[in-house]
Amino acid sequence: MSPTEDELTGWFAQQRPLPPGAYPIGIGDDMAQIALTQGASVLITTDMLLDGTHFDLRTATLHQVGYKSMAASLSDCAAMATIPLAAVAAVALPGDFGERQLKELHAGILSAADKYDCPLVGGDITAWNHDGPLAICVSMLSKPGDNPPVRRNGARVGDAVCVTGSLGGSLRGKHLTFEPRVREALKMTSLVTLNSMMDLSDGLSSDLNRICHQSGVGALVDAAAVPISQDAKLEADPLGAALNEGEDFELLFTLAPQQWNKLRTMWDDPVPLTKIGVITNTGRMQIRMPDGRISDLEPHGYEHLQRRA
Amino acid sequence: MSPTEDELTGWFAQQRPLPPGAYPIGIGDDMAQIALTQGASVLITTDMLLDGTHFDLRTATLHQVGYKSMAASLSDCAAMATIPLAAVAAVALPGDFGERQLKELHAGILSAADKYDCPLVGGDITAWNHDGPLAICVSMLSKPGDNPPVRRNGARVGDAVCVTGSLGGSLRGKHLTFEPRVREALKMTSLVTLNSMMDLSDGLSSDLNRICHQSGVGALVDAAAVPISQDAKLEADPLGAALNEGEDFELLFTLAPQQWNKLRTMWDDPVPLTKIGVITNTGRMQIRMPDGRISDLEPHGYEHLQRRA
Repeated sequence: MSPTEDELTGWFAQQRPLPPGAYPIGIGDDMAQIALTQGASVLITTDMLLDGTHFDLRTATLHQVGYKSMAASLSDCAAMATIPLAAVAAVALPGDFGERQLKELHAGILSAADKYDCPLVGGDITAWNHDGPLAICVSMLSKPGDNPPVRRNGARVGDAVCVTGSLGGSLRGKHLTFEPRVREALKMTSLVTLNSMMDLSDGLSSDLNRICHQSGVGALVDAAAVPISQDAKLEADPLGAALNEGEDFELLFTLAPQQWNKLRTMWDDPVPLTKIGVITNTGRMQIRMPDGRISDLEPHGYEHLQRRA
Repeated sequence: MSPTEDELTGWFAQQRPLPPGAYPIGIGDDMAQIALTQGASVLITTDMLLDGTHFDLRTATLHQVGYKSMAASLSDCAAMATIPLAAVAAVALPGDFGERQLKELHAGILSAADKYDCPLVGGDITAWNHDGPLAICVSMLSKPGDNPPVRRNGARVGDAVCVTGSLGGSLRGKHLTFEPRVREALKMTSLVTLNSMMDLSDGLSSDLNRICHQSGVGALVDAAAVPISQDAKLEADPLGAALNEGEDFELLFTLAPQQWNKLRTMWDDPVPLTKIGVITNTGRMQIRMPDGRISDLEPHGYEHLQRRA
C-alpha cells in the first residue's frame, strides 16, 4: 500500500528536525513559523492549484481561479489565527494563454488581495514548452496577532470540537468563491483561548483525524450536530458529504468547554459557530449517529496521493 | 505584438502601488521585502520550474531537479546579497509518480537546503487528475545581512559592470548543478558598496537591460572582456552564447570604479570577478566588439512569453 500524504509529510519532517528556537513551527501544520530578531516572526504557507484537480477551466473563470488561489492560502492564515502580510504567485501557463487571460487571472488574485489586505508583492510567470495545463502556486506570509498561532497539536481531552459555517457540497460552487475565515479566527482568539485549529480543506473526517493524530487524542462527533450546507443537502448522502468532502475552507477548532460556553455567548458574528463533538481519550475517531449508535469514523476525505493509487 | 514579461510585470506593479514603509521592495526585483516590527524585515521570492521548460526528465535526475529548484531561489537571495532563511516547496506530480520518486526529489531539495543552510519548512503535494508534467515551485525567505539588500535600480553612470564566474552554455549541464553565489554576494557587500545587482537567469543581454531600464541608464559592454565558459566555447557562437543564453545563475552587478578597484584587489575567492563594461548615460545598451566597432546590444536572452509568440 502506498503511504498517505500525511505519512510522507511526517517522513519528510523527520529527515531534518528543525531547531525550535529558530523554527517554532515546522512541517505538518497549516503554516510554518520562522523566528527573526527581536521577538518578531513570520509564518509561511504554499498552495499549488491545478487545472483539472482544484479547478476546471471548462466551467470556472480565470478570475475565480485567481481568487481561489489566494483564498486557499488566506484560509491557512486563518487556520492559525494569524494576520496575512503579503503573497507571491507563480504561474505555469498553457500554450494558448495570452495577455488578456493573464490579466483576468491577475484581477482575480487582486480581488482577494484587496479584500483581505494582503498585497501581491511578487511572482514568477512561466510557460509550458510543450502544451500543459494551468498551474498556479501562491505562497503567503502572515504574522502572529496578539495571541500565538493556533496549532493542530493542542487539542485536549474534554475539548469541544467546533466548526465555522456549514459543510459539504463545496464543489457545487463554494470552492471557487468561499470567504477565508481570517477575520473570524482573529476575533475568536481575541475572545477565548483555542487549543487547536486547522482549516477544512480535505474534508472533516480527514482533517479532524489530523488534529487527533497530532494531539494524541480521539474524538466523538455527534452526527446530528454537524451543520450540513444547503449544497450538501442536494446530494444523495448529505451527512456523508459534510463529513468527507473537501474544499469547505471552514475552520475546525477545539477549546475547553467553559471557553466554548463563553465564546458562544459572546459571538455576534453572522458566520455561525457550531459544536459538533468532543475530544476523547479513546485514541480514535468515533461518530454518534442520530439513533444513538456509536461507530468508528474513518478518514475518508480527499487525499491527493491515495486518490491516484 | 505581445507585451514582454517585463512589460506585464511592470503593468502588474502599477495596478497596486505598495506603501514603501511596509513594503520597501515590491514587484520587479529579485525578491520583495516586507517590513516587520522593530526594524526587522524579510524578503521573499518564488520560482516555478517545469518539466520540458526548466529541466527535462528524460535526461535530468529527480535529485538534480530538486537541487535546481532550491538553487534557483537561493540565487535570488544571492542577487540581493541577503541571507537565506527558509524554503517551502509545492509540487504537481505526474500520474506515474510514486513514493520513491518523491523521495528522490526531496533528497535533491535537501542537498541544497543543507549546503546553503536554508531548511525546508513546509510544502504542498498535489497531483494532476489527468496526467500532466512535473512542476515544482519553491518559495524562499531571506533576511538582510549587515548591509541593505542590493537592488536592480541603483546603477549609476560610470559604474563598472561586473559578473561572477563565466557565462554561456549552461544548458550543457551547469543549469542543473550550479552553485548559487550566496556566499560570494555577502562577501562582496562586506568589502565594498554595490550599487545594483541581479542574478543572470535569462541571459546577460536581457538581464543587463533590466538593470539599465530600472536604473534609467545605459551600458557599454566590452566583448573581449566577457568571460566565456568552457561549455560556451563548444558552441558555434561562443560570445553569443555568453551574451544571450539563460540559466547562468551568476551575479551581474555594478559599483563605482574606485570600489571595483578595491574589490578586485581584496578578492581572494576561487570564484572570479570580471569587469565587462561600464554604465553610461546613453540610455541604451551597446557593445564594443574586438575590432573596436561599437553597436547596439539587443536583449536577446530567454524570454518566457516572447518565446511562445
